[in-house]
Amino acid sequence: MDADAVARAFVEHYYRTFDTNRAGLAGLYQDNSMLSFEGAKTQGAAAITAKLTGLPFQQCQHNISTIDCQPSGPAGGVLVFVSGSLQLLGEQHALKFSQMFHLIPTPQGSFYVLNDIFRLNYA
Amino acid sequence: MDADAVARAFVEHYYRTFDTNRAGLAGLYQDNSMLSFEGAKTQGAAAITAKLTGLPFQQCQHNISTIDCQPSGPAGGVLVFVSGSLQLLGEQHALKFSQMFHLIPTPQGSFYVLNDIFRLNYA
Repeated sequence: MDADAVARAFVEHYYRTFDTNRAGLAGLYQDNSMLSFEGAKTQGAAAITAKLTGLPFQQCQHNISTIDCQPSGPAGGVLVFVSGSLQLLGEQHALKFSQMFHLIPTPQGSFYVLNDIFRLNYA
Repeated sequence: MDADAVARAFVEHYYRTFDTNRAGLAGLYQDNSMLSFEGAKTQGAAAITAKLTGLPFQQCQHNISTIDCQPSGPAGGVLVFVSGSLQLLGEQHALKFSQMFHLIPTPQGSFYVLNDIFRLNYA
């Protein structure tokens, strides 16, 4: 798969998992993974999953507007840059966000998330 | 310098150069550098500089709202995620944007931009 195909497949899988089974995101991170969520830094699959499952909203739906990707160097990594909106249950307005991921190939032929940075786009 | 200090110094230098001497950005890119600007991909310092200097506005001012950064792996790279606004000369409203950079250390002890992805935040 080229970087574009990897990015599209990852984005679809990530946000579908976030919206339907958030705890299932744990399998996408490893011990050296880092999350910066609205400026708060977390490291490691367990801590990142705790952060994401502990966010103060339950049901949500991500809608993706744009996906950009580039290879991150000779080692097969892929950078993915996403913009979209996040609709929370019971809220009238969706929240716009931007998020980037750095995907690293695994020996099993898949990818894990080494870097994850999320920011709401304040108007 | 730690990753935070690298990121802050880079962001200050990059946007000051963009706003005062856009052609001077050439020195921050190399032949394998990639730019995705509003979805349009460009590769190489010369082509990237041509793209940036050819944008359909001259005077502009970037104002930075947030800077997030993380190390991108064991090789000393740094991922920088920026949000801010772009004020064009003669325009009433500033444009919100999000941008990410992947900085790679050089043998001279500095950094160059391997990956650069820019997106306006549409309301």
